Amino acid sequence: MATGTGAQEAVTAGAIAAAVAAERGRAAALFDRLRADGEDPPGVTRDPYGPGEQRGHATVAAEAARMGLDLSRDAAANLYATLPGRDRAAPRIILGSHLDSVPHGGNFDGAAGVVAGLVAVAALRRLGIAPACDVTVMGIRAEESIWFQVSYIGSRGALGSLPEGALDARRIDTGRSLAEHIADCGGDPAALAAGHRHFDPATVRAYLELHIEQAPSLVAAGRPVAICTGIPGNFRYPDARIEGSDDHVGLPRRFRRDAAMAGAAFAMGIDRIWEAHEARGIPMAATIGRFHTDPARHGLTIVPGAFHFSLDVRAYDESVLAALDRDVSALVAGIEQQRGVRFHLGTKARAAVGLVDPGIRAGLAAAAAALGVSVLDLGSPASHDAAAFAQAGVKMGMVFVRNAGGSHNPNEAMELDDFLAGTAVLTHWLAGAVSA
Amino acid sequence: MATGTGAQEAVTAGAIAAAVAAERGRAAALFDRLRADGEDPPGVTRDPYGPGEQRGHATVAAEAARMGLDLSRDAAANLYATLPGRDRAAPRIILGSHLDSVPHGGNFDGAAGVVAGLVAVAALRRLGIAPACDVTVMGIRAEESIWFQVSYIGSRGALGSLPEGALDARRIDTGRSLAEHIADCGGDPAALAAGHRHFDPATVRAYLELHIEQAPSLVAAGRPVAICTGIPGNFRYPDARIEGSDDHVGLPRRFRRDAAMAGAAFAMGIDRIWEAHEARGIPMAATIGRFHTDPARHGLTIVPGAFHFSLDVRAYDESVLAALDRDVSALVAGIEQQRGVRFHLGTKARAAVGLVDPGIRAGLAAAAAALGVSVLDLGSPASHDAAAFAQAGVKMGMVFVRNAGGSHNPNEAMELDDFLAGTAVLTHWLAGAVSA
Repeated sequence: MATGTGAQEAVTAGAIAAAVAAERGRAAALFDRLRADGEDPPGVTRDPYGPGEQRGHATVAAEAARMGLDLSRDAAANLYATLPGRDRAAPRIILGSHLDSVPHGGNFDGAAGVVAGLVAVAALRRLGIAPACDVTVMGIRAEESIWFQVSYIGSRGALGSLPEGALDARRIDTGRSLAEHIADCGGDPAALAAGHRHFDPATVRAYLELHIEQAPSLVAAGRPVAICTGIPGNFRYPDARIEGSDDHVGLPRRFRRDAAMAGAAFAMGIDRIWEAHEARGIPMAATIGRFHTDPARHGLTIVPGAFHFSLDVRAYDESVLAALDRDVSALVAGIEQQRGVRFHLGTKARAAVGLVDPGIRAGLAAAAAALGVSVLDLGSPASHDAAAFAQAGVKMGMVFVRNAGGSHNPNEAMELDDFLAGTAVLTHWLAGAVSA
Repeated sequence: MATGTGAQEAVTAGAIAAAVAAERGRAAALFDRLRADGEDPPGVTRDPYGPGEQRGHATVAAEAARMGLDLSRDAAANLYATLPGRDRAAPRIILGSHLDSVPHGGNFDGAAGVVAGLVAVAALRRLGIAPACDVTVMGIRAEESIWFQVSYIGSRGALGSLPEGALDARRIDTGRSLAEHIADCGGDPAALAAGHRHFDPATVRAYLELHIEQAPSLVAAGRPVAICTGIPGNFRYPDARIEGSDDHVGLPRRFRRDAAMAGAAFAMGIDRIWEAHEARGIPMAATIGRFHTDPARHGLTIVPGAFHFSLDVRAYDESVLAALDRDVSALVAGIEQQRGVRFHLGTKARAAVGLVDPGIRAGLAAAAAALGVSVLDLGSPASHDAAAFAQAGVKMGMVFVRNAGGSHNPNEAMELDDFLAGTAVLTHWLAGAVSA
């Protein structure tokens, strides 16, 4: 095992793999504690700026304190656990992910990246590497947009790039504003409202995030780890509705203005658009997550006069996204004309495509090759905080870990061996980066 | 104006029209009181075996008492207001409809037929006709199946033909059983459970029902009244669901088992089946009244793993219904295979096709012709209590009244002139029938 200044040439891939493997117990214990923190059968709920996420932050902070890392928090109540570098003024490296979850989700979505950061820092120390710059593990708040219908709240709060009106967004379950929730957790919504940022992107050398894969591509390919090639941008209509006419079940077809049938036509239209892109090899995804008649009015013998839905469309290329947005508009216009209904798409949210830094991507691939970890190149199926960093001009890279059982549900299943393989790739890259 | 025994030849169509027109004030006042009884903005709620329907029954009973009619009730708490005939033992004629409504419905669906019965009896008296047999106005309970998911509860209760298990059905809003609700309203659920019937169908000469049209065919044709040619039978799945897999919004299309998308494919399949029948001139209707993702689980960024819907399919021919049932099964099997989901159609309810008596239909048409009322022949868009009588072997006929604004919604709009024209047709038929 290398000692002293930790010059890169002194540390072998084997030593790095061994140092990460030696942290297996820490990782397992952290995952167990985080699962207990969020237990909400079925699955885990770490509600952002609420009791579930708070317990997760406390667990991570306690572990970081035991490790002797410097702890701090920002106006958005994100957690920073820093291993000081030899040059404290040099731009730092951040290893992070989010600690919140969807309702009744799995234990690993988000949390794995924070645990990986702690493990990487512990391994760095075990290897005797004194890093050239600060290495900060960041526990990010409120990444899951289901709660406030706003994406990347914690990371954009840190970067000073929260969208207009975000602090007034209400959590779907509590009905309370983001500002109130942030204040509850010791944050400073007034500072966020004033556009305060916690750090200048120029002071961040790189942002690295490990995350479980949220699709079964790695499972299907039989590989443990993937290197991210890009994060999709998206546009969203969180609260769209269709206005038709409530009518009697005996109404002939030609007279109907059935809002639910119009919703079905819309969904099938979206499915056809996706199918056509798939056939042409253009990666995208479209999800209609909420899709429902009005529970206060619907019934067996009433033609639905109102229908509600959400839409999330994502792609890896801004021009593809723009074309998809036009496709959606054309689909809506056609259905309105054919079925005598009116669509009200409501608020539109957007997230830009997140470009991965080519140097970091190549470095991660080289690390995997050195470690003998078989990786896939993979466009991220999902959005991640890393995209907010990329948007702010920070060089970004991501590592995905194989996960069976899907994500955003209680059946997430990440093997600890795969997690350690992904963390070894991250640590190998980090060891090289901080040994200069 | 005719007097004495009221032999048919002595009563002209003009006199009948005048006698009905003279009852305009009674009809208007009754409709106003019934609207006030059920006021529940927007619209009217006369909840079956609940406060709304109870107030409507009290209003009708009070009016019938003022008219000096004989009042009685049965085990299902239906109301009977009888004008005694010269021969009390002769099979009677029933003029009836239901007094309940859908939640936030209109004032006329159902109630118009009860008011028409009272007006027809009042007009008979005004014409000085002493009827050959009893003429009974029947205020029927709980016709709207949205509440208990059981159709024709009141009329089938009277006829002793309630389906197995109906008394255990729970009202969707209160969660209490039909038996409990009936007992609340002075009925006798134990007698109904024992299969007791209030009258032998052989003691009923005919059942006539006036009802607003629940489609805009009369509005489109510019005619005030229609003579019913038949009542559709139906099959229903009140609580169907689709089981897929909850997944992350980034999951590629080929891996998804999206229950909502399967629901959309099902709805579009049903729509295509209907379109094809329409093109071939085979009357039917299909309604998916409830159509929704699971509110406890759905969200912007979750692929829906569960979907719920109801289905009501109706047609005028039993063989068409049977073929449609097979079409639905084939549609389900295809979607299950294509989309990796599983349908659970749940409980199936059926109602038989209701055949109109050809003699009554011809008699109503002749009455309209004599009165100069321009009528349409019309298959009933909806189900009605009349179908339960037809099923029990009672000769049945129906008159529809023009109604703008659709039905099962607060916008029902029946003009009093059209109502009186329909009631005149009914009264003309009745005068002929009881003057023998």
